Order: sequence, then structure tokens, then C-alpha cells
Amino acid sequence: MENTITSFSVISEKALIGKNVQIGNFCKIYDNVSIGDNTIIEDYCIIGRPTGKKEKQLVIGNNSIIRSHTVIYEGSIFESRLETGHHVLIRENTKAGENLRIGSYSDIEGDVIIGDYVRFHSYVHVGKGSKIGNFVWLYSLVTLTNDPLPPSLIEQPVVIEDGVVVCVNSTILPGAHLELGVFVSAGSKVTGNIPAGRIVTGNSQIVGHVSKLINPETGLKHPWMNHFYTKYPKETHERINLLREKILTTYKTKE
Amino acid sequence: MENTITSFSVISEKALIGKNVQIGNFCKIYDNVSIGDNTIIEDYCIIGRPTGKKEKQLVIGNNSIIRSHTVIYEGSIFESRLETGHHVLIRENTKAGENLRIGSYSDIEGDVIIGDYVRFHSYVHVGKGSKIGNFVWLYSLVTLTNDPLPPSLIEQPVVIEDGVVVCVNSTILPGAHLELGVFVSAGSKVTGNIPAGRIVTGNSQIVGHVSKLINPETGLKHPWMNHFYTKYPKETHERINLLREKILTTYKTKE
Amino acid sequence: MENTITSFSVISEKALIGKNVQIGNFCKIYDNVSIGDNTIIEDYCIIGRPTGKKEKQLVIGNNSIIRSHTVIYEGSIFESRLETGHHVLIRENTKAGENLRIGSYSDIEGDVIIGDYVRFHSYVHVGKGSKIGNFVWLYSLVTLTNDPLPPSLIEQPVVIEDGVVVCVNSTILPGAHLELGVFVSAGSKVTGNIPAGRIVTGNSQIVGHVSKLINPETGLKHPWMNHFYTKYPKETHERINLLREKILTTYKTKE
Repeated sequence: MENTITSFSVISEKALIGKNVQIGNFCKIYDNVSIGDNTIIEDYCIIGRPTGKKEKQLVIGNNSIIRSHTVIYEGSIFESRLETGHHVLIRENTKAGENLRIGSYSDIEGDVIIGDYVRFHSYVHVGKGSKIGNFVWLYSLVTLTNDPLPPSLIEQPVVIEDGVVVCVNSTILPGAHLELGVFVSAGSKVTGNIPAGRIVTGNSQIVGHVSKLINPETGLKHPWMNHFYTKYPKETHERINLLREKILTTYKTKE
Repeated sequence: MENTITSFSVISEKALIGKNVQIGNFCKIYDNVSIGDNTIIEDYCIIGRPTGKKEKQLVIGNNSIIRSHTVIYEGSIFESRLETGHHVLIRENTKAGENLRIGSYSDIEGDVIIGDYVRFHSYVHVGKGSKIGNFVWLYSLVTLTNDPLPPSLIEQPVVIEDGVVVCVNSTILPGAHLELGVFVSAGSKVTGNIPAGRIVTGNSQIVGHVSKLINPETGLKHPWMNHFYTKYPKETHERINLLREKILTTYKTKE
Repeated sequence: MENTITSFSVISEKALIGKNVQIGNFCKIYDNVSIGDNTIIEDYCIIGRPTGKKEKQLVIGNNSIIRSHTVIYEGSIFESRLETGHHVLIRENTKAGENLRIGSYSDIEGDVIIGDYVRFHSYVHVGKGSKIGNFVWLYSLVTLTNDPLPPSLIEQPVVIEDGVVVCVNSTILPGAHLELGVFVSAGSKVTGNIPAGRIVTGNSQIVGHVSKLINPETGLKHPWMNHFYTKYPKETHERINLLREKILTTYKTKE
């Protein structure tokens, strides 16, 4: 990146900008912003867009990468190593843990709580008020809804616990609760409470335990922490292994 | 917003710009454009993009908000209080009534007619030539198609009447006609003519009348005008109530 | 387009830019780029974004149109007449033939091979490593996946042969192989090998041969090359007709 902080970007003097931060061309950085050290903000980004309300500061942790054409409102807090894809939108009052990765064109609608090491692929829509645990995966086109009688003023956001995987093009209906390590297969529509460790498919049909998900060619099987922990930093391996064991326990005791 | 009209934006001197208009940074405003009073154009927007054809003027009504990274072609007319989300695309020859709200990443493909107080959530794709009535709701990932034998040169756009609600991730197939107040549940695929006031689910399966849609916890029920009219301005309440009564009539006389 | 190459755009002096190229405002053109003659790059585009790896040059062929807010990484090769919609993302190491057209908000994830005259509509997500033949159509919200045990390190990209049509909101599951001229109806979920010329619907259900797809009102029928070849340039008509005949052969000999 050959960017410098000054080229065509409009940066508030009130913004708190850490050491060794790179800001691309054509960016807009507002007042109510704190950007951590070693963070990269690519071109055409809006950081700290005002909401018109009295919001908290937008805090972006150290070592983050905000890819081009991303818009982040004021009032959210991201711990270190946030990564956004291109064309991402994040509304106010989102609180996310370590190393959240958000795929391109994803839309986080605000008042959302997200744990550590969560990954979203592209076009993920996280409805207002959703609660998402640690080490969760939401694949492309996954939508977390929140209105059970649309349109209404009732809000029943989705709750997703640690280690859950929601595959491509699935819709999580209002008030659904996916317990620890649930696996939602592609194109599902999920409602109600899904017990820990279960596979869900179609219209909320439970079809077994995740430990039965095996790739015949490689012999690899779920919970995904069995084979995929290597993609996370070493300091997380113990947490991931504990999560794996907890999910395996849900099989032994109940089935 | 601390924007001024001049900062890095490229604005044609031929564009007609109303009183008290705010134009963000890095915008591009073309010749064939009229922007109403008190309108806000946020950053990275293209307003009045030429089509290469001889198009009518792009008219954006008073008190509108065009959020960042939006592209609107020339040749469309929007009455007052248009609101777009971020990253929206609107092609030429769209005609929309009062207070259209278009969610982020939505794509209006042109030659479309839209009534008053219509709301689209994110990633809504409105196929070329669609006709949409008043007080309609299209939720995230809803697609209105128009080619019955893809790819072909046949165009059978969708018709959606007043008060219709289409829930998340539903596809409306070419030539479908959703009559007054129809409710399409999440993840449906709708074809043919759906009689007024009906609930549709799955593959165009009609499963009852909207007045049976009740939220058990709150007791609120459809038609949604029962409980949601308060979110519209006072001058619309009589229209909304008449629409509600018309939809209720479709139950009494036919079931 | 009244653009000139210099207005606010940041263009590397090392980029190879052909004759009669138009570059919009607020663009970013990196070093490792070759742009063919008569190509138009619209506003807010990033061309040749570095990957941090040692990548090949990004080559964009003659007579291309890159619409606004598009991001193309270095390391890909596009033959002439590439067209992107608005807000498109193309990652590194994509190799595409003549006249690829990519709809708005589409996301090509890299290491992809694409033939000649391929068309994607909006929000198409092409997973890493996909192989796509000539004259293929992918409609809105089509996703080509590649991980059979998500999340895992196994990669089983999709293979799509010449003349295939995948309708709106369909998901092609990891390792699926759509043979010559297959037609996937709207909202399908496709896995495994689909024999040439077949129609697929729902959960990979084969329901007949494409030559049975008829529009009753016009009498037009598939293969689509019957009626749609006129939309391609004359020099392709013989190729299209040969493809049509090959697809018809799959009916005669097997059913």
C-alpha cells in the first residue's frame, strides 16, 4: 500500500488515530472515532458516520483491516484485528470481540453483540439486536431476522451460541436460539430452540448430531474444531478444544 | 454533517439543486438532474448517471436522503422523502411515489413503477418493468424476476398490489400477480395469481387469510395496518385504514 | 462521459493504459495493471489492488466497461469486452474469456476459470476455484460453494460446462458438476453430477430434458440457443448452434 494519510481523504482533527495507521485515498473519518495502532483503512471508507443521536465513540482495535467502500457508524466497539471485506456496512452500537472477520457486502444492523473469532462470509445480514457467541461461522447470504409479524414493532432477535455453523443461504427466523455447536445446513429456515450439537436442515428439521458429519473422502469429521483449529492463533487452541469437548458431551449424554 | 458542496465533489453547473441541499464529499452530480430542497446526498454517490440514450431528467423530491455509495441513473422521478440505504443502485425510468425507502445493496433494474410509502430492506432486486403499489414491504433478499424462459427476450414482470408483504429470501416468479394485502412467508417461491389477502408459503401454496396471522405473545395480528400505522405520518392514516378494511373484506366475502 | 484521466484519480505511472481509455473520477489504478484500448473505468474503482503476494499483472482486454465502485485485484486476465456492473468484486488469479458480463454486487472469489460470453446477474458469488465453461448464465443470488464440510481446508470447487443456466437463488454445492446445457430452476440446491441437458429442481431432483422447457404463450423453447442467439455477435452464431445441437443430442440418445 503506497497510501498516505493526506491524499484526498477528509479526516477530522478530533479523531484519535493510533501509531502506524494507514488511511487510503478518498476516505472520510469523523470526530467520534478511535483507531488502533497498525490498522489499515482502505479507500472510499466512511469511519464513524454520525447517527444524529448522542452515541459512544467508535473504537476500532489494533491491527485491523477495513477494506474499501466500507461504512462504519459511530457508537460501536471492536477489539483488535477486526477485518472487513469490501462494501461492508456496520450500524451503531455493535460490540464485537477479538478478530471478527466480516465478508464483503455484509450488513450488521446495529445493537448487536458478537464474541471472539467470529467469521461471516459475503452478503450476511445480521438483524438488529442479534447475539452471537464465540467461534461462530455464518456463510454467504445467511440472514438473522428479528420481527415475528412483519412489519411490527415486536423485536425478537436471534441468539447464536459458541461454535455454531450456519451454511449458505439459510434464514434464521425471529427469536430462534441456536445452542452450542449447532450446524445449520445450506438453504435451511430455522425457528425455535435448537438443542446443542444438533444438525438442522430444511424447515427446522433436526437430523442428528454434528459428530456424524463426516467427509467420506478425507475422513475428517465434525465438530469442526477437530480439524480446523490450526487456522486460529495458538493462544486460542485451548479455548477451541474445550468448546469441542463440550459439544461432544452433548452427544454422549443425550443420544 | 460537516459537508460542504464543494469538497472534492464533481457537480455539473447544469444540475438544478434546491435550497438547503447538502452534498457530501467525493460525489458526482451530472447535468440532467433536479434535486429537491433540504435533500442530503452523502459521500461517493453518482446522481444522474447518463444512459447513453435520450432520457428524461432525474428528479429527486424534497427532503430526501441518499446514503453513501448510491448510484442513480438519469430518467427517473421520485416524489418527496426518498431514502436510500448505502450502496444502492437505481436504473433509468423508475417512477416512485412519496417516501420510498430502499435498503442497502438493493438494485432497482429500471422501467419500474412504485407507489407511495413503499419499503425495501437490504439486497432487494426489483426486475425491470415491475409494478408495485402503495404501502408495500419487500424484505431482505426478495427478488422480483421477469423472464419466464431464461434467457429469453420475453418479459413478464411482476405486479404487486397495495399493502403486500413479501418476507425475507422469497422469489417472485415471472408474471406473478400478488393482489391486495397478500403476505408471502420467508423463503417462498411464488408464481401465478395470488388472491387478495391470502398467505402464501413454500412453492406458491396458499394457506389461509392474513387476518389469521397472530403473534401469540402480544396478541397483535394482521393485516399489519392494525398495529403498524403509527409508524407512518398522520396524513396517511386514513388511507392506511381504508386499505386495512379492504383487506378484511376479502376474508368476509370469500371464506 | 465527461471524465478526464486526471480528475482526483490516483493512477500509477507504471500502469499500462491503452489508447482512448476513459478513467472516471476518484479512481485508484495500481502498478501491476494493463488496460486495453477503448476501455472505460467508471468512478470509485480500484484496479489492480495488490494482494501482498507476487502476482501476475492484471490484464483487462480492449473495449471493456468497468462500472462504478468495482474492485479488481491484481493477477487476473480478462479477454476483450469485459463488463462489470456496479459494486463488483473480483479477487486474484481469475482467468476469463471474451465478453464476460458480471452483474452488480457480484463477488468472484479467485482462482476461477471462466469461458467466453458468460453472463452473471446480480449478487452472484463464485467460490474459489470454480470452473465455468462458455455461454453460461448464472442468475441473481446464485452461489457456487467449495467447502464440503464447512469450515474445513478441503476444497471441492464446482464445475459448470458450456451452455448451462442456473436460475435465481440457487446454491450449487461443493464438488457439483453440471454437464453441458443443464438447466437449474429457481431456488434449487444442486449436488453431485448432473447429466448433460437435464433440468434440475429442488434438492437436486432431475425432472426431464431441457428441450421440454417451453413458454406456452410464445411457443419458444429450450435449449435457449434456439431463440436467444441473436443477442450475441454474429461471429459466435456457429459456436452457439453447435452447442445447441450437442445439447439436443443428449436427449435423442438417452431418453
